[in-house]
Amino acid sequence: MTEATATPGRNMTDEIAQQPAVFADLLAGRDAIAEVAARIAERRPRFALLAARGSSDHAALYAKYLIEVLLELPAGLTSPSTTTLYGARPDLTDVLLVSVSQSGGSPDLLEVTESGRERGALTVAVTNTADSPLNSAAELSVDIRAGQEQAVAATKTYSATLLALYLLIDMVRGGTGAQAESIPDLAATTLDTSREAVDEAVRSYRFAERIVTTGRGYSLATASEAALKLAETSYLSARSYSGADLLHGPVAALDADTAVLAMCSDGRGGYAMREVLDAVHERGADICAIGSAASDVRASHRIPVPACAEELAPVLEVLPVQQLALGLALDRGFDPDNPRGLRKVTRTR
Amino acid sequence: MTEATATPGRNMTDEIAQQPAVFADLLAGRDAIAEVAARIAERRPRFALLAARGSSDHAALYAKYLIEVLLELPAGLTSPSTTTLYGARPDLTDVLLVSVSQSGGSPDLLEVTESGRERGALTVAVTNTADSPLNSAAELSVDIRAGQEQAVAATKTYSATLLALYLLIDMVRGGTGAQAESIPDLAATTLDTSREAVDEAVRSYRFAERIVTTGRGYSLATASEAALKLAETSYLSARSYSGADLLHGPVAALDADTAVLAMCSDGRGGYAMREVLDAVHERGADICAIGSAASDVRASHRIPVPACAEELAPVLEVLPVQQLALGLALDRGFDPDNPRGLRKVTRTR
Repeated sequence: MTEATATPGRNMTDEIAQQPAVFADLLAGRDAIAEVAARIAERRPRFALLAARGSSDHAALYAKYLIEVLLELPAGLTSPSTTTLYGARPDLTDVLLVSVSQSGGSPDLLEVTESGRERGALTVAVTNTADSPLNSAAELSVDIRAGQEQAVAATKTYSATLLALYLLIDMVRGGTGAQAESIPDLAATTLDTSREAVDEAVRSYRFAERIVTTGRGYSLATASEAALKLAETSYLSARSYSGADLLHGPVAALDADTAVLAMCSDGRGGYAMREVLDAVHERGADICAIGSAASDVRASHRIPVPACAEELAPVLEVLPVQQLALGLALDRGFDPDNPRGLRKVTRTR
Repeated sequence: MTEATATPGRNMTDEIAQQPAVFADLLAGRDAIAEVAARIAERRPRFALLAARGSSDHAALYAKYLIEVLLELPAGLTSPSTTTLYGARPDLTDVLLVSVSQSGGSPDLLEVTESGRERGALTVAVTNTADSPLNSAAELSVDIRAGQEQAVAATKTYSATLLALYLLIDMVRGGTGAQAESIPDLAATTLDTSREAVDEAVRSYRFAERIVTTGRGYSLATASEAALKLAETSYLSARSYSGADLLHGPVAALDADTAVLAMCSDGRGGYAMREVLDAVHERGADICAIGSAASDVRASHRIPVPACAEELAPVLEVLPVQQLALGLALDRGFDPDNPRGLRKVTRTR
């Protein structure tokens, strides 16, 4: 557990600000990721599984989209309990199993990874703790190099995990991660230029009790992470839906008392959000659009983010989401560095 | 779209009551499912993908657990948008692709199924509409035989889909579905014996605004379906978490203003809920335990369900959940047959 800080939110504030430097450092050290990618490419996996919990599960969701679209491999998120509770022992020959955990210390992921490796999977740990039990259990490891995270709410470890997974997957298909080279600068610009719009959004949502987050495609991961971040730091009743699923039922629950945070970046996912937000608007809900295409949709708040390749947008979109969660928590009188009832490493099985 | 009924909730009430008979009919016609199962077993798939939206997505989640545990195959839920928005065309040789949709009319599932079949997957449609476009697109079809569903909120088509998927998967591994033979009688008992506890819960949660639903293992599907059903009929801010994920962060957002519906059935998933509910209790939240092991956990309400094989518990657990959603909607002055802003078939891409 982290110690309470003198200033509430000091650690989260610092860690949000560190992200451009963390991204630059990760890019500078990407040769290590290239080596792991080469080993994966050599083995020619036919299916991919991703194992994670909490924020890392949203990073895994992002990687699932990257693997399906960029590597054209079928992929799924594991349900750790089928291993840890029910003892399932499937044949995992030809399967790439990627376990994502900033601490590398979750007993359930460790068990899934050990058991997967025994059953033929090529196992890869993606962690922020190079000497963790998960790294020892997996055949290959990617170090996200984000430095120690003090705040219980993950910020820099989440975004660094996204970038590391992007680099890994791009390199498996023979890329060099070139599209990501501008990310450190764009991240610095994002933190700077989104501040004013974030502050306005904090004022508007100070008393909000119901928040729904939504996105499609790669940005669904950002919507999921936004809901978790708001729930765990501001204790809001926040939940995320893919834009498509939102139209299938939950849109009925939206009304003028609901604030909808919508991820809208340039590209196919953001474009598909237009019809979703038309239906949300009809229900009278308030819309806060976040992303490089925020100006193209109906919204009462727009938080701009610089344009980049669509598959990298989640790395930038999450920055104003973190600022919003931090701002709301502080305004509502909470310390986001030490959410009530939470520890940094959660030991579920 | 269905027409408004004279009595609010008339259709949903009727359709909930029909479920024991629907289950009996499905079991009586299970030879048709056995034929599909034999074709699947013959092809020896190595990996399973499930495609669905809305309530059917929760049935797919249930099937994912069954496939991982009973068939010991790695399985994943598809993200339809990687096909429909991003045009991914993975090699699906050796993949079993199960598309679940009561209407069989969603354009995105149709595209995923057509595209999957072209790329080598063994495609199976599970629908309540034997002549649907999805049935034509898939190589094999399972008819859940639930009869027409009038209410927009799915009840009997959801539970019949669960039972059909159970029978299919049990038969792929060489079973006869024998464990399910008692389900029609147990379902009738459940509807009867849970009524009083459901009515009490309706009175307690009449003014609730924040509901969290949770479960582990097979019952995670019920928790997910419960949150959707409450959101779309009673417009509650309801969201579901796996018990393990709840401990990883969102437990912080729980307080005395939150009602937690917890699925607690006999078996490994229900047993693992004990530590989850201890943490929930510490946060001061109200707990309503539903299932055959409801009496073993901390709770202020307990809705009993007869014991059955753990993998079939979701078929029974969802019955009082439907009654609770119906009762809350009516008490709160809504017509659950015609939720605002929803249509029966949602046409997302």
